[in-house]
Amino acid sequence: MGHSDKEGLGTKEMDIRSMSSSRHHMENLPYVHKVGVSPRQNLLKEFASTMKETFFADDPLRPFKDQPGSRRFILGLQAVFPILEWGRNYSLTKLKGDIIAGLTIASLCIPQDIGYSNLANLSPQYGLYSSFVPPLVYAFMGSSRDIAIGPVAVVSLLLGTLLQDEIDPVKHAEEYRRLAFTATFFAGITQAALGFLRLGFLIDFLSHAAIVGFMGGAAITIALQQLKGFLGIQNFTKKADIVSVMHSVVGSAHHGWNWQTVLIGAVFLSFLLFSKYIGKKNKKLFWVPAIAPLISVVLSTFFVYITRADKKGVQIVRHIEKGINPSSVHEIYFSGHYVLKGFKIGVVAGMIALTEAIAIGRTFASMKDYQIDGNKEMVALGTMNIVGSMTSCYVATGSFSRSAVNYMAGCQTAVSNIVMSCVVLLTLELITPLFKYTPNAILSSIIISAVIGLIDYEAALLIWKIDKFDFIACMGAFFGVVFVSVEIGLLIAVSISFSKILLQVTRPRTAVLGKIPGTTVYRNVAQYLDATKVPGTLIVRVDSAIYFSNSNYVKERILRWLTDEEEQLKIKDIARIQFLIVDMSPVIDIDTSGIHALEELHRSLQKRDVQLVLANPGQVVIDKLHASNFANLVGEDKIFLTVADAILTCAPKMMVDEV
Amino acid sequence: MGHSDKEGLGTKEMDIRSMSSSRHHMENLPYVHKVGVSPRQNLLKEFASTMKETFFADDPLRPFKDQPGSRRFILGLQAVFPILEWGRNYSLTKLKGDIIAGLTIASLCIPQDIGYSNLANLSPQYGLYSSFVPPLVYAFMGSSRDIAIGPVAVVSLLLGTLLQDEIDPVKHAEEYRRLAFTATFFAGITQAALGFLRLGFLIDFLSHAAIVGFMGGAAITIALQQLKGFLGIQNFTKKADIVSVMHSVVGSAHHGWNWQTVLIGAVFLSFLLFSKYIGKKNKKLFWVPAIAPLISVVLSTFFVYITRADKKGVQIVRHIEKGINPSSVHEIYFSGHYVLKGFKIGVVAGMIALTEAIAIGRTFASMKDYQIDGNKEMVALGTMNIVGSMTSCYVATGSFSRSAVNYMAGCQTAVSNIVMSCVVLLTLELITPLFKYTPNAILSSIIISAVIGLIDYEAALLIWKIDKFDFIACMGAFFGVVFVSVEIGLLIAVSISFSKILLQVTRPRTAVLGKIPGTTVYRNVAQYLDATKVPGTLIVRVDSAIYFSNSNYVKERILRWLTDEEEQLKIKDIARIQFLIVDMSPVIDIDTSGIHALEELHRSLQKRDVQLVLANPGQVVIDKLHASNFANLVGEDKIFLTVADAILTCAPKMMVDEV
Repeated sequence: MGHSDKEGLGTKEMDIRSMSSSRHHMENLPYVHKVGVSPRQNLLKEFASTMKETFFADDPLRPFKDQPGSRRFILGLQAVFPILEWGRNYSLTKLKGDIIAGLTIASLCIPQDIGYSNLANLSPQYGLYSSFVPPLVYAFMGSSRDIAIGPVAVVSLLLGTLLQDEIDPVKHAEEYRRLAFTATFFAGITQAALGFLRLGFLIDFLSHAAIVGFMGGAAITIALQQLKGFLGIQNFTKKADIVSVMHSVVGSAHHGWNWQTVLIGAVFLSFLLFSKYIGKKNKKLFWVPAIAPLISVVLSTFFVYITRADKKGVQIVRHIEKGINPSSVHEIYFSGHYVLKGFKIGVVAGMIALTEAIAIGRTFASMKDYQIDGNKEMVALGTMNIVGSMTSCYVATGSFSRSAVNYMAGCQTAVSNIVMSCVVLLTLELITPLFKYTPNAILSSIIISAVIGLIDYEAALLIWKIDKFDFIACMGAFFGVVFVSVEIGLLIAVSISFSKILLQVTRPRTAVLGKIPGTTVYRNVAQYLDATKVPGTLIVRVDSAIYFSNSNYVKERILRWLTDEEEQLKIKDIARIQFLIVDMSPVIDIDTSGIHALEELHRSLQKRDVQLVLANPGQVVIDKLHASNFANLVGEDKIFLTVADAILTCAPKMMVDEV
Repeated sequence: MGHSDKEGLGTKEMDIRSMSSSRHHMENLPYVHKVGVSPRQNLLKEFASTMKETFFADDPLRPFKDQPGSRRFILGLQAVFPILEWGRNYSLTKLKGDIIAGLTIASLCIPQDIGYSNLANLSPQYGLYSSFVPPLVYAFMGSSRDIAIGPVAVVSLLLGTLLQDEIDPVKHAEEYRRLAFTATFFAGITQAALGFLRLGFLIDFLSHAAIVGFMGGAAITIALQQLKGFLGIQNFTKKADIVSVMHSVVGSAHHGWNWQTVLIGAVFLSFLLFSKYIGKKNKKLFWVPAIAPLISVVLSTFFVYITRADKKGVQIVRHIEKGINPSSVHEIYFSGHYVLKGFKIGVVAGMIALTEAIAIGRTFASMKDYQIDGNKEMVALGTMNIVGSMTSCYVATGSFSRSAVNYMAGCQTAVSNIVMSCVVLLTLELITPLFKYTPNAILSSIIISAVIGLIDYEAALLIWKIDKFDFIACMGAFFGVVFVSVEIGLLIAVSISFSKILLQVTRPRTAVLGKIPGTTVYRNVAQYLDATKVPGTLIVRVDSAIYFSNSNYVKERILRWLTDEEEQLKIKDIARIQFLIVDMSPVIDIDTSGIHALEELHRSLQKRDVQLVLANPGQVVIDKLHASNFANLVGEDKIFLTVADAILTCAPKMMVDEV
């Protein structure tokens, strides 16, 4: 390269060079620049840096650098319990904000908890338990300031569906509950392990589009299931897909619906939806939809109590155990064949719970511009669920709706979770008997109005506009959840997302480049309509790493571009192509199969009397071209820094004419 | 963009523009060029073109374009039976080459076939059968001119291992054989279906590195298994892993070895290896190693016959059925629980056979510079195995060693396969009884000397030099095969190859760019040590599509580059960074998660009072930036054609100083 010439073109080029070099650049440097070969890295160092980027991308040890031992210990403690750090700057002003937010989310969570535990086929008190211990643990270990912890609709539904596939929740209530705690335990272990092993990036494999579809589908499934309570149907299907549910609903239309129940449900659902509408219209009235559920519960309970509507077929909660969480350490299965089942369910539920919590954490962190350490967050969420599983809680995570209320109510720190937790404690100790006459229809209404917010059709529309493939993943997840089951929906979404990545790596885009008039810039002729091809050359850009999965395709595609071009030239009777320039800018990596493909391309081109020229190979690629000796095969002087440089050497006539 | 200014910087910039524009370019065009937005494609058209690139990348219908109906029919017939095309130009000269090549590969294949059928736990005649029918079918339908069809070592071993996991080949010989035909049938179906459905690209997912490791491991496994015949051991393990085999070998050292067998084996193995050495030294003597096996068989058979060494414990072939392939249509399981098993085994064996055949076909095609249509080739190979399964053949494919001999012997067309087939026919009809006294040790020696060529340590070394990750895949496959089993080795290789792709998409490289002195080119400062950063700006390049799996990482990594840079600047007390320029050249695609990440990045940068600037987004990316309204959010005038243009606008001081 540079000024060393090898293959015959030498003398002619040299003339052109001396002619054009002074024109092309202001300085008197040689105009053809060498492709940089970086200093060879030590193998161990290279490996270490790859490992660092993969597992420690966020550089978690940065604050520990250059600190004395005692300071490191304190920093370490603060890393595990962030409350030690932010707690020192805690003030009365912040406390005021946290108390208001905490009270607001408590009023929202109590009725929701009772409803959600029903989705998980558990008695109502387990929902309340799960809003007491986990938020406390999180407040000490979590780093999000806005997240509201507790049971959520989608995870409750998922857990309930998976658990009842194993054990009947009515006939074998105790085993069912024990398996639920086992699954919760393993969900916590999974979450903490992912964080501890720094594998947090695995949850990124559930794409935004998939989550939108999945959440929407789950919301519809949950809403449909609420028709049982809402319509007062006794014999309701246990399946969650839309076909079975609609069959149950329609089948029981004549004799199974209870009009009193429907009336109560409809009235309060209207009230709830109207309060939501008010909250949306005027952001300052965010507290209206937040306390509407509690008001509905109080009013409807009082109404049923005085009218004794429960004697007319209106189903009521009947009984909520009084008192705080009993220990459930001995209820977790640590042996027997339920361990494996609990483990499997726990892994799935734990991952979904994690995805939801991390998404919430990141969203609010970016709104207030603070950092969330994903892996640390996972350890916090995992620990909270492990502790939860031992204190009669089921899988808790961050709730979308309650976190938004928390944020709008002006929460400052995780103290709002502690406040909420205290309110739940008081509820458990004092007022659970009052819920006896609460009609199930109200709980159903509350759940329906809560999950409606999960159907994000605007996001789906945006996805459609941006990326059709993402939209397919989104719809796959949605219809999979609605028509088959939650797991299938998930599986479809993940498979589609993965196959998109693989498709992109298998069939990368290629483009023919042309010169943009008046510049030395070469761009896709399909994108820049004024870009013109340079006679005698064909410039092709490959838009992907060249790997085993696409090496053969890339080779054949480039040859096909050449054949197409030559056919066109034949018709137009223009000079034949002498140089095939491959712009390697987007080729971020190449493997042995890729090198082989380039060798074969080179050989095929030689047979056609076309010279292969490479432009702008990146650091990794140029290293490999040298290591494999391909750089020598094609000729070092055929590898250029830019397409412009390559053209300058290969098509000197062109340059002399135009520049 | 271009001359429209929006955000305050306007007037100052305008001045600089008028100052520098005449300097920067020769022509009097505006110096900042618009990023091209291509004419919006029809959704259906876009979909059709994606489908075309995925499934019809090789444009198979090109010759049919603009042809009359009758001509199309002939072209179609020629597409299915290429012999109709090349047969018309067949000449006596070509026939001469084909006859010599055919005779040479026949002499090599006959002893190999007998040995390989033993690897598949089948009687010797099945190997010969498989060298008779499949090559004939292939000659009519295949498009490779150099491939030699027949049973091969690796597929025989794989088939034998998989089959004996289901049925004991000694106790239930008939069921075993029937399952073998069933598997062969489904292997053929799989191959033909992949070709017909144009899913041929699936075999590309087995990377070159994985194949090298897999073949090497299989070769060692096969060679170790031959120790049974070579040492004359009676009680030999059925497992194929190295530990079990060595245990058998060492355990029988005292009483199980037969010295006469070892002597015969060692003498002829030396002879075979020496002939290989000669063939390697002098390419003209390629026929020496090609006929050495047959000579060994003849000599050793004669020797055993006259010395009656078989009575002293030297094991012999004993019996090979005379006559050509009987029909086996009724032996294939089309119902019952063996169908599924046969299907599974067939899919695996068929894929491996396909990989080998396509690799051979492509290698020789690129050496003689003709085209192989992968999908058509798969249909040919599949049909050949389907027909084979009905005529008592097991899975046949292209053999590496025999194809090389075929090529060196000067084969011209697939007629050499027909010649070989005829020789095998004569062998089956006339001389199989003569093989009665052939010692098994000779067959073992022939197999050992044949598979040694599959251990390609030079390729492994090259892989190590080029790509360490590929080397891990290679070694994973190798040790998986050697220490566990053929299937596990394959699974390891495929998993490692895939995780490499995913890792690259999850943790893409990013680089900080600097200006190469005397140019307007910006490159990685780690690769180009003389590249200098532009004060007041930070230029970061993202080396990958921005997808859900990496969007969060990319965002945080860019922010980390910024933090690092700002810390350094603080120490050096240089002006703070005002513009973060993201070079999008290698960002070949972006999805909704990626857009979200960019939005979050933009928001974070706003909080830090740094302006986000994009350079050179590709066609797909710019479309999506517009569709998602992100282009408006960041400002259309903050998106530039090149980094140089971006710098020209963002750091005008710099340009005035230097240019």
